[in-house]
Formats: sequence, structure tokens, C-alpha cells
Amino acid sequence: MNKLNKNLKMSSASIPTIRRLPAYLYLVRRAKDEGLVIISGTVIANELDLEPIQVRKDLASTGIIGKPRVGYQVSDLITAIEEFLNWDKKHDAILVGAGNLGSALLGYKEFSKNGLNFLAAFEADELKIGKKINGIKVMNIDVVHDFIQKENIQIAVLTVRSGIAQEVTDKIIDAGIKTIWNFTKVKIKVPKDVLLLKEDLSSSYAVLSVYS
Amino acid sequence: MNKLNKNLKMSSASIPTIRRLPAYLYLVRRAKDEGLVIISGTVIANELDLEPIQVRKDLASTGIIGKPRVGYQVSDLITAIEEFLNWDKKHDAILVGAGNLGSALLGYKEFSKNGLNFLAAFEADELKIGKKINGIKVMNIDVVHDFIQKENIQIAVLTVRSGIAQEVTDKIIDAGIKTIWNFTKVKIKVPKDVLLLKEDLSSSYAVLSVYS
Repeated sequence: MNKLNKNLKMSSASIPTIRRLPAYLYLVRRAKDEGLVIISGTVIANELDLEPIQVRKDLASTGIIGKPRVGYQVSDLITAIEEFLNWDKKHDAILVGAGNLGSALLGYKEFSKNGLNFLAAFEADELKIGKKINGIKVMNIDVVHDFIQKENIQIAVLTVRSGIAQEVTDKIIDAGIKTIWNFTKVKIKVPKDVLLLKEDLSSSYAVLSVYS
Repeated sequence: MNKLNKNLKMSSASIPTIRRLPAYLYLVRRAKDEGLVIISGTVIANELDLEPIQVRKDLASTGIIGKPRVGYQVSDLITAIEEFLNWDKKHDAILVGAGNLGSALLGYKEFSKNGLNFLAAFEADELKIGKKINGIKVMNIDVVHDFIQKENIQIAVLTVRSGIAQEVTDKIIDAGIKTIWNFTKVKIKVPKDVLLLKEDLSSSYAVLSVYS
């Protein structure tokens, strides 16, 4: 995708819309598995507990318009969402930190099915280096800089322990990483041109432990 | 904690405040490890990229007030946050679905350190039943109903595959589960008196794949 298309696309959907699109996609894929050819916006809205107007607006941002009082062609809708999300393309990435959570992410089919392509995992623990986890080779963290540059990797999933999160972040950004998906509990600092996504399991656990 | 205290506590902090508290706790625990005795609200605010007034307000909801122009006693602050979050108490729970993600959660020290206590994991896969994952025994999903009732479990972490998520949810709620932490990609339906927390890894991946 060239820069212009990318920018056009960026302006056509808000972050909350983008965050909702996977739920639409899963629902419509399931409808396809069940043999449905057409699905209405109202059915989608009911299933996901959203307003029908919201659903139509969200789906319109992928470029697809349903037929009034009929709905969407299931296969067209799947294609439109997949293309919009770039889930029909490969996203080469590395995992940094192959502990329990990192290992789970390497084997999480949900991501690989939708384009996330781990080329390698990096670890300081010598017992893990050289082994494979869920089919992905584990390499020495000392060579991560070279690997990123050689393979031109732009996406890193960060699952190291908190104490070294910022240090590792600085190192991989210096090597060329442009997107970091941070699963550590630390708020890491990145330059403005780096996209940072934080996955924060502790926040939900906090709500759970206060209210349950 | 009795009902009254619980209700008083509920009214004293908003959900966004509760979601931010773990980040404060990790920062202050780290400060303690580094030998700090006092920490100022401004330092906390800078570290977490928040406004100082926000930090003081959030921390005040745990019942702790810093000294003007001095700050907070590190150990008092840790205790106040841990007590407020109930992270100083055990939260008995079960895991339902011992795939990759589920297995990782069983071994995620971050949760166990803060009170989450998995008593068992439940699976339909006969190859896993009877084994242990990260020290937690894996039991047959067929006995989950009995287990919940016998052990009076109220918290379930849901990591089954999407196709059976609703069916399993109905079953465990019928058995007495009052809190579900949903890691599946399905939007499950629960009665009003059940607390539902959704962890949605796909939403972040959607943003990542559109923008990177």
C-alpha cells in the first residue's frame, strides 16, 4: 500500500471504529461458516449490542454499503473488512521476551490467521535460546539489533520483564522498529514517529478484584 | 469485606481510576526496590505522563493523602493501593480452556502475585486432562459445574475457543460464577448480576495492522 492510499484510509475511520471491526469480522465469518449468504445490519447490531446506525457507519468506512432492507453480501463484507484492516497481508514481526505470555502469543492462531507473522523471538535466557516455541525460533537478545536491520522488521511485540522494558525498547527502536505492541506493565517512552500500543491486563484485573 | 464497606468503596473511585491504580502500584513498588522512602505526586505524574492533580485525586480515592511539598510514604502508599484493590487478599478462580493463551495466564506471575489464585483449569481435550500446567491441575470440562459449586468459585477466566464460549458461559453461570474475564473473541451474553470483563487482543491488533 502506498503512502497516499494509507493516508486516505487513515482519515476514513476513527480508532474506536477500527477497534470494533474485528468483532464484525468474526461474526460475519461465523455467519459464512453457517451457510449464510446475506446478513443484515440489524442482525449484526443485535448480536454485538450496538445501534444499527453505528454498525452501518462503521462498515461504511471499509467501503461497503449494504442494500436497504436486505443487508450485506457475507463474502463481500468479509473481504472488505479484511482488506481494510490489512488482514489479507503479512505483517512481519518479532517477539521480544519469550516467557509464558510471549510463548502464548507466538502460538495464538488468532493473530497468525490474520497476517501477523513472527519471524523470530528474542530472549536473554540461555536455556531458551536456540529452541523453538510454537514453531518460532528463539534467538539471543544480543543479536536483535542486527536481525531487525537485516530483515527490515518494523513491528515488535514486547513481552520482556518490566525492569528491562525501556532499555530493550530504546535498542529496538534504534535498530528500526516503528511499531511496538507493549504487553509489559511498564509505560515505555518512544519517539513521536513510533506507534505504541499498550495491552494492559492488570487494569482489567484491578476492576475484577475491586468488584468481585 | 462486608457489603457496606464494599459499597462505600465502590462509590469512591471511578472505573478509569481503578484501571490506573496498578500502574501507580508498580511504579511505587519499584521505587521501594530502589530504596526510596518518600515519593512525590509530581514524580509519579511525570513517570506516567499524567497531570499531578489527576495523580493526587486517584491516590486519594485509596484513602491516602500525601504531605504538601513532600509526597507520600512509599510503604504506606503501597499498602493503601494493595488494600484498595484487594490485591492483599486471595481471589479463588478457575480457568476454562487450557490452550496456549490459557496456559500462559496460569503461569502469569503478575496475577498470582496480586492475589489471583487458580484452583484448577478445565478442558475438553483428553490429552490435557489430568496433567498440570504451570502447577495447576487440568480437569475435565464435564465436571466444571460440580467443581464450581463444591468449591464455591465465583471467578472464571474464559479462554475457550469462540464456538463454545456462550455455551460454556451459560453453564458456569448456572453453577454460580459471578465474574467472568472473557479472553475469547466472542461477545458473550450474561445476566445483569454477573460482572463481565472483556480482554480484547484483536482490537489492538486491528489498530496495529491498519497503521503500521
